[in-house]
Amino acid sequence: MTEPLRVALAGLGTVGAGVIRLIDTNGALIARRAGRPIEVIAVSARDRSKDRGIDMNRFAWVDDPTELARQAGADVVVELIGGSDGPALALARATLGAGKSFVTANKAMIAHHGLELARAAEGANLALKFEAAVAGGVPVIKGLREGAAANEISRVYGILNGTCNFILSKMEAEGRDFADILSEAQRLGFAEADPSFDIDGVDAAHKLSILASLAFGTRPAFDDVTITGIRHVIAADIAEAASLGYRVRLLGIADAGAGGLFQRVHPHLVPESHPLAHVTGSTNAVVAEGNFVGRLLFQGAGAGDGPTASAVVADLIDIARGEFGPPYAMPADALAAQPASDSGERRGRAYVRFTVADRVGVLAEIAAAMRDAGVSIESLMQRGANPDGSVLVAIVTHEGPERAVAHALEKLRGSSSLTGEPMWMHILG
Amino acid sequence: MTEPLRVALAGLGTVGAGVIRLIDTNGALIARRAGRPIEVIAVSARDRSKDRGIDMNRFAWVDDPTELARQAGADVVVELIGGSDGPALALARATLGAGKSFVTANKAMIAHHGLELARAAEGANLALKFEAAVAGGVPVIKGLREGAAANEISRVYGILNGTCNFILSKMEAEGRDFADILSEAQRLGFAEADPSFDIDGVDAAHKLSILASLAFGTRPAFDDVTITGIRHVIAADIAEAASLGYRVRLLGIADAGAGGLFQRVHPHLVPESHPLAHVTGSTNAVVAEGNFVGRLLFQGAGAGDGPTASAVVADLIDIARGEFGPPYAMPADALAAQPASDSGERRGRAYVRFTVADRVGVLAEIAAAMRDAGVSIESLMQRGANPDGSVLVAIVTHEGPERAVAHALEKLRGSSSLTGEPMWMHILG
Repeated sequence: MTEPLRVALAGLGTVGAGVIRLIDTNGALIARRAGRPIEVIAVSARDRSKDRGIDMNRFAWVDDPTELARQAGADVVVELIGGSDGPALALARATLGAGKSFVTANKAMIAHHGLELARAAEGANLALKFEAAVAGGVPVIKGLREGAAANEISRVYGILNGTCNFILSKMEAEGRDFADILSEAQRLGFAEADPSFDIDGVDAAHKLSILASLAFGTRPAFDDVTITGIRHVIAADIAEAASLGYRVRLLGIADAGAGGLFQRVHPHLVPESHPLAHVTGSTNAVVAEGNFVGRLLFQGAGAGDGPTASAVVADLIDIARGEFGPPYAMPADALAAQPASDSGERRGRAYVRFTVADRVGVLAEIAAAMRDAGVSIESLMQRGANPDGSVLVAIVTHEGPERAVAHALEKLRGSSSLTGEPMWMHILG
Repeated sequence: MTEPLRVALAGLGTVGAGVIRLIDTNGALIARRAGRPIEVIAVSARDRSKDRGIDMNRFAWVDDPTELARQAGADVVVELIGGSDGPALALARATLGAGKSFVTANKAMIAHHGLELARAAEGANLALKFEAAVAGGVPVIKGLREGAAANEISRVYGILNGTCNFILSKMEAEGRDFADILSEAQRLGFAEADPSFDIDGVDAAHKLSILASLAFGTRPAFDDVTITGIRHVIAADIAEAASLGYRVRLLGIADAGAGGLFQRVHPHLVPESHPLAHVTGSTNAVVAEGNFVGRLLFQGAGAGDGPTASAVVADLIDIARGEFGPPYAMPADALAAQPASDSGERRGRAYVRFTVADRVGVLAEIAAAMRDAGVSIESLMQRGANPDGSVLVAIVTHEGPERAVAHALEKLRGSSSLTGEPMWMHILG
């Protein structure tokens, strides 16, 4: 048998342990498929004594993860420490600098430093791979880099955060409110103790910026993603959406045109006829629209140790086979720097929900603001008083410029008729 | 710029013309992504004078497609002639024999001769690629060969024939019968003049046998696929299924276990909670279940010139990048010969619909046959007389061995109570 591909692994949390368990379990099959065995030879983690349910004494133990970059005999370093900078980034730089390939599940680091790392990898003919960084086990990086490579991609979008989708689809199924479901998700381990990266959309934005770069051949531009999370979605929004034939989903969505690169994470109304409307629980799903292939959908488990380990080891198999090239499909220096587009220029349909005082004239005030801003209303629902006496008004607009809706909301800002912030969601078209 | 990848193309039907149009349209982008241009240099087709809306004078014209294998300067031959044997197979053998790589969309040829061709390609370090042979533009060959490569796959299944799914989902939406929709589909060009390869399940079986080989590391075994098409599905079956919370879909489904390799194409009842229930029209979708990744879904356009051309050119890009290896993920000689499993040993739930005479005792006869065969009935619906006086009886069984259902149907064979063949569909579990 050919020489094994030898791996040094940094980070032994659930994903790191999952990678070892996967290679232990499927090793023989992997060797057949990869043409050579994949073998972990060294590991590094904060706590050596922790019981991970796996015999770790087989591996060389290194206290400082950065030292794995110089681990004798290792061909590849796998980084599962996390964090956009710090030890993860130090390890990435050291590994590529030392002439070893690098695999990571670290979306934050790739979103922020992917371009620099890709340059380093390409310059040294090494692999830099990050399939696990987006949509967990779903091979969507590969799907864009290779599967859809013949296409000009007009748009890429999807459900990129499993925690948010778990919460939204549970709110939908049970009619309960956000805070309530969030605490349950935290109790069950589906949401972090500090859930803000997930529910405020930052995690989805990291992933979106990686997808956009692959899809459009543009430089990664995380800072240009506009981000709104799901904190302010209420049960009534989901009920209104359902009554209109929509499901509420947190979507990351990107396109690139003459106006520049558009990247947004925002709650959307998704028509029931769209496959993303049927994605429930912590599943992730990504759609890419190509000028020849049409609409491609990739769907599966977006997180968890098994799916993430599956993606990490898929990257290792590509490396073992020698089937890899520029991480962003084209050389990093060929990626185009594109300015962020102006979202006000975008056209679409919108859902806007107001929480208003239960008194005469409120509806007239909202309707006038919409009219004055040039927003054409397709439907308007007013629902009876909440326990606190406030009333919900939900509007669906005809297709029109986003600028007009923003304008109308600007006019209404500070109005004493509103008892809370309006909720604006885009309707996926 | 590096040397182009030079392509000789056999077959200028809609897909062949689509490949040329794609390279014409997206050529600059493809060159950036592939690291070098992809250039068609020679073509062959039956009718040279036919207007394909594309300038063909740029290309060397070859009357005998087999001669493309010896085309000076060509690195790759793309075969879009079709047919499991004949000129397509002769060209494949000649191409690999002449030291050129080979790309095809020909599912019938790969299902029958894939192993032989893979051996020839591997022996000469050439690429043999057939992404377009399964699910059109959807990169599911790549998804199994690479994306899910770290997993033991327990089951692969999906909607593999767009014509059948178009017909079934239209029957579902409009309550019309099979023959009626089929003629409409033929008129619209969604079904062939001779539709039997599609509607009798042979096309899906070709694709299934390719997927099974990739998923399980087993030798392609098309002859072991058991095949039932959709000809005998009636509108009432779809209505009954809907009333029970199911959609009728033609599924190809394969698994590999101790009992051998199981491969079947058959109409199924798919629960509404399953993503395949929401795949309508001519869309294809494939699910692979892995021991670490869980359930992966790949979905998109299963046919048409644009999507098929997209898959063909994706294969060419892989070749241009030098990112290819054994076509079946592992060397052809490492694929295991596995016997076909005995479907009688399988367990599952079933839907069985009888068309019966409207007279006393018929229900008792059916119920007795089920009881005597040991089939446990979960629900039974009898619906009023058809225009011809016959009555429908639809049964859903509890989970049990398929052998028992087969036994019950055997007992009822030839009974004067039945006015037509019973329809047996499996329920996807």
